[in-house]
Amino acid sequence: MNVRATAAVRYRWRWQFGVLVAFALCSAPTVAADVAVVESPEKVLRVTVSINGEGRVGYRVDRLGKPVIGESRLGFIFADAPKFERNFAMVDSTTRSADSTWEQPWGERRFVRDRHNELRVRLRESKAPYPAATAREFTVVFRVFDDGLGFRYEFPDQAALKQVNITDELTEFHLLDAQTAWWIPAGEWNRYEYLYNRTPATEVGQAHTPVTFRMTNGLHVAVHEAALVDYSAMWLRRVEGTRFKATLSPAATGPRVQRTAPFHTPWRSLQIAERAAGLYMSDLILNLNEPNALGDVSWVKPHKYVGIWWSLHLDTETWSSGPKHGATTANARRYIDFAAANGFRSVLIEGWNLGWEADWFANGESFDFTKAYPDFDLEAVAAYGRSKGVRLMGHHETSGFASHYESQLGAALDLSARLGIEAIKTGYVADAGGAKFLDPDGTMRFEWHDGQAMSRHHLKVVTEAARRRIAINPHEPIKDTGLRRTYPNWVAREGARGMEYNAWGSPPNPPEHEANLFFTRMLAGPMDFTPGVLSLVGRNGQKFQSTIAKQLAQYVVLYSPIQMAADLPENYARYPGPFQFIKDVPVDWQDTRVLDGEVGDFVTVARKDRASEDWYIGGVTDEVARSLEISLDFLSPGQRYRARIYRDGDGADWQTNPHAIIIETRMAKQGDRWRIPVAAGGGFAIRLEALQ
Amino acid sequence: MNVRATAAVRYRWRWQFGVLVAFALCSAPTVAADVAVVESPEKVLRVTVSINGEGRVGYRVDRLGKPVIGESRLGFIFADAPKFERNFAMVDSTTRSADSTWEQPWGERRFVRDRHNELRVRLRESKAPYPAATAREFTVVFRVFDDGLGFRYEFPDQAALKQVNITDELTEFHLLDAQTAWWIPAGEWNRYEYLYNRTPATEVGQAHTPVTFRMTNGLHVAVHEAALVDYSAMWLRRVEGTRFKATLSPAATGPRVQRTAPFHTPWRSLQIAERAAGLYMSDLILNLNEPNALGDVSWVKPHKYVGIWWSLHLDTETWSSGPKHGATTANARRYIDFAAANGFRSVLIEGWNLGWEADWFANGESFDFTKAYPDFDLEAVAAYGRSKGVRLMGHHETSGFASHYESQLGAALDLSARLGIEAIKTGYVADAGGAKFLDPDGTMRFEWHDGQAMSRHHLKVVTEAARRRIAINPHEPIKDTGLRRTYPNWVAREGARGMEYNAWGSPPNPPEHEANLFFTRMLAGPMDFTPGVLSLVGRNGQKFQSTIAKQLAQYVVLYSPIQMAADLPENYARYPGPFQFIKDVPVDWQDTRVLDGEVGDFVTVARKDRASEDWYIGGVTDEVARSLEISLDFLSPGQRYRARIYRDGDGADWQTNPHAIIIETRMAKQGDRWRIPVAAGGGFAIRLEALQ
Repeated sequence: MNVRATAAVRYRWRWQFGVLVAFALCSAPTVAADVAVVESPEKVLRVTVSINGEGRVGYRVDRLGKPVIGESRLGFIFADAPKFERNFAMVDSTTRSADSTWEQPWGERRFVRDRHNELRVRLRESKAPYPAATAREFTVVFRVFDDGLGFRYEFPDQAALKQVNITDELTEFHLLDAQTAWWIPAGEWNRYEYLYNRTPATEVGQAHTPVTFRMTNGLHVAVHEAALVDYSAMWLRRVEGTRFKATLSPAATGPRVQRTAPFHTPWRSLQIAERAAGLYMSDLILNLNEPNALGDVSWVKPHKYVGIWWSLHLDTETWSSGPKHGATTANARRYIDFAAANGFRSVLIEGWNLGWEADWFANGESFDFTKAYPDFDLEAVAAYGRSKGVRLMGHHETSGFASHYESQLGAALDLSARLGIEAIKTGYVADAGGAKFLDPDGTMRFEWHDGQAMSRHHLKVVTEAARRRIAINPHEPIKDTGLRRTYPNWVAREGARGMEYNAWGSPPNPPEHEANLFFTRMLAGPMDFTPGVLSLVGRNGQKFQSTIAKQLAQYVVLYSPIQMAADLPENYARYPGPFQFIKDVPVDWQDTRVLDGEVGDFVTVARKDRASEDWYIGGVTDEVARSLEISLDFLSPGQRYRARIYRDGDGADWQTNPHAIIIETRMAKQGDRWRIPVAAGGGFAIRLEALQ
Repeated sequence: MNVRATAAVRYRWRWQFGVLVAFALCSAPTVAADVAVVESPEKVLRVTVSINGEGRVGYRVDRLGKPVIGESRLGFIFADAPKFERNFAMVDSTTRSADSTWEQPWGERRFVRDRHNELRVRLRESKAPYPAATAREFTVVFRVFDDGLGFRYEFPDQAALKQVNITDELTEFHLLDAQTAWWIPAGEWNRYEYLYNRTPATEVGQAHTPVTFRMTNGLHVAVHEAALVDYSAMWLRRVEGTRFKATLSPAATGPRVQRTAPFHTPWRSLQIAERAAGLYMSDLILNLNEPNALGDVSWVKPHKYVGIWWSLHLDTETWSSGPKHGATTANARRYIDFAAANGFRSVLIEGWNLGWEADWFANGESFDFTKAYPDFDLEAVAAYGRSKGVRLMGHHETSGFASHYESQLGAALDLSARLGIEAIKTGYVADAGGAKFLDPDGTMRFEWHDGQAMSRHHLKVVTEAARRRIAINPHEPIKDTGLRRTYPNWVAREGARGMEYNAWGSPPNPPEHEANLFFTRMLAGPMDFTPGVLSLVGRNGQKFQSTIAKQLAQYVVLYSPIQMAADLPENYARYPGPFQFIKDVPVDWQDTRVLDGEVGDFVTVARKDRASEDWYIGGVTDEVARSLEISLDFLSPGQRYRARIYRDGDGADWQTNPHAIIIETRMAKQGDRWRIPVAAGGGFAIRLEALQ
């Protein structure tokens, strides 16, 4: 028969669901009965929990009276116990309202309001899974904000289910009317470094979160998770039509998650906004995380850094020892001088330690995290830095051999602390087939980068570092789920295609890359993108798909409390004008306002310096030249500002004329409306200096 | 940016692939070099194996010079060893031609020709995964026929990889130009009983095989596997665009597959045909299986049976004891009399044994496979049957509690053999969350119905039964991969939506169901669909979406060596005319010819009785009334046939007039062309009796 496919799929799913019910009961399908409802504080969102005739628990979400998430089931499959799917009844439900404001030690904004209504629904099996057994319980908790919601499962302490071995979650997200999706595939590679797919929602396969959807009515929905602790990352897999389900990152051996009750899962989150800008403005992910667990974190220093890095990706210098070795004492001193002269707080030096000779992409057991190469006098370099007020940024590439790293972690961190290192960039290139754990019995486990084992490893590194007052910045990491709130020394991470792809990536990052990242990866948290390569040329002369002005815009658009000036010192010397913005731009903010944007097309964002009354604005476009309008409504009334504007020059174009830039000064006040022309692959950056 | 989605995805995948290469080598992407080629005997198909610059092994398939399967990688991820993905070089390659014909003990055709060319490519790591380790090897073997191909991996005995713990396969199928797909979801439920989705290929999620595709040029491709032994079933998951990858059914604990080298995987199969009919005509799956391992199997008797079954699904009788218990001595005698009077060889009696009182859908430990209910005198019923020349068909519902069944298997089979039972229908309803295995340490494992554990279980039951000369017919089974060739007592199985869905399914099987099954599920092998419910009414008066003539067509269209006459004796008494065809139609065939058909729309198939010169023709349509043309070119020249035609009557329609049927006789000879009108939801059946 010929039927319109999408319609057919939806249609058939309904059939299917009916069938499951029917088969389970050997009776006609049964309808779901609503058992609990909770609305957001301003009644924008409404979550309804239902239980159908076979005892299957589900939820749905309406926004302003219109359904957004259709009936979606909740549940689990276990490795050694009957599944949580049917035969559940509600024991009780409770609601709670919360409205508080908390302060971030650093971030996109200083104060965050946490206003939500909470619904807790306790569920118990209506009959025991076995004649002999006792009925089991679980609780599902919803926290509903006006701009999104989170829900998690809580496993209480109960005799019938002590050790919880989870094969997979049955959690569903039926994204009614989802039209377009921006996503990267999950389950293919031990890394997140993909170009973003933009496809019809019905063409999503299995995706890492955040996944961003645009609905047919223009509504935007981002699916992610919050507070991923001692659990496997949630992937989003499309079942049929626009019905998605959570599936957990696998474990090398055993169930995907092994926990002992009582415990709870991470929050499954849905950010819901009329416009794309609203997704980024939401503080949902941070609000769903636990408060700061580290106490005084004044030792976490947002700052800008430089380092021996770009030359390694250009292959003009090497990580490993030899004639091209980058991490030499002399070279390090040169970078320290450059940092001191230009106000950068730290210097990253990759390839300083022993172990880069082997095929390090796949190995890692040869890495030594306390021993430097002979041509690199670690102590002397650190001392020289201190004499200039410049710290080293530590670097620990593990190649994903997590247990090897853990075996040296204490000594490596102690050494770092003694040298005055405030932050360490870690690396988990794991091309052998996963992150590695050498078990006591001598067997090697190859784990996914985002499975339960790695969620434990990363948190172990972060907490061990916190004890030494050191911040951590992992590359090839586990995804960000807002844990920076609880552990503010987890300052940034990579977890997407960064600048290095412009050096050797095939292709380099496309013009739309920043506009994709902003509305997907950046919804999760800070990214150490390592921006600001003004030379715009990669290995073998590979051309960037960016103008020079866009390189400056990255500092405002792609938030991180630690930002690199990634280019070579000699290249910054060639572009003193644009380099001035990199020296001026702060990395810690009082406030953030997304002015405008469309996923994958363009974005304009304004951020207010945390240390002054100055504002900074950044804008990026894709391969389309545009005239971006910005309204300066956010400026303080009566305050005058001197604007330093860095924008694409006349005839600028990433392909033919990437270095054309106009740097101009004009005055600004609240209410001004400007149109900033941006070139194909271009962008702009503005400093608004509040005048006395 | 706005781009056509599919184009974007393809485009980006190419980008992506480039990136992986680039990242691995830190150099520009490398092109793949062809290292081996093999063509099918008539040069219809051509398989090329390539290795790219990073040592990644791939294959592609051309048909008549046009690419069908684009560059697709091969490889594995292991739980405790570096993956097989990159750094491989070819050691050597060998080719072999084979052309033989073998005889089936029973089947769709008596003689099967196995004509193919084989390519073996031995691959070794170009560098050891660790400095210390030794380079590992594997071999990929392709068998290329003119109508399809299979390939499998062989793991040789080698010191560096003895115990092979497979996390997943990296095997890809890049189905260039795949347009439409017919599929059911995998990973959602411990069963195959779904309605078939017909969607654009780019909207497939994760599917069970066989999955059937139609390409933009009209070519048909079915992806499946052959000889699934001691391994996890292959699911097909779409990655991006029309690029699919194998993913293995999970294990409750541990890696998805655990094997000790030397061993080989099942064959990954691609059936490729111009027209849909060609897919069904292919013997690829059987040819990729090993020859009969049981020796003399004359004791496997293709036959028709009746039984106490439909009444249970109507809920007029019950499996469990009590006032409505169906399996009583008296009722059994009534069915035996009916079978004897109408020439049915066996009688299925469900609910004869103890254990149906508990919530058997989720349990199973209460089942006893040797003890009958008090109101059912097993010995007396069996003896009565023997006195009438009628056997019992055994019935063992396990609820998926596999280890519980195995603990009683020997005794249950011995009892069956003693009672003269020739075939046993087993059942694996596993609604607790999977097939269950109680380990010696007291822990229960919940396994997928098609994981390695269940592939072992099913084969154990089949081989144990063979020792007692008993045939096995599992319901809620593992999928068919052609093992009936090696174990001819594995006569049939369910593994799709059968007749019972017309009793209580919501909805009942749709008009297109048979036309979907024929080109998807039936490509795998025989199905015990339990056809022939002439009353056309389910529970609570639920209306079938079928005419009475189509019920007859099922016997020819949906092949099985054991076919049930599923309706109640009293209903057959109401329709003596149509019932005559059910009595006449054979279940074992000399030859099979698919005359015409389109996936999900309609099919006409002719089969020649193995015991005579008679032919039988069946045809089914979907919800569209059609005039189906059949060409009797396959009849023997000079031979005259008396055709008994059972077709939809004037005004027949599944909704308004399902019982309208015309039964007519006419003469037939080779070359005749007939047009048979079929109603919406209708079909036809023809017996062509060769005259002396």
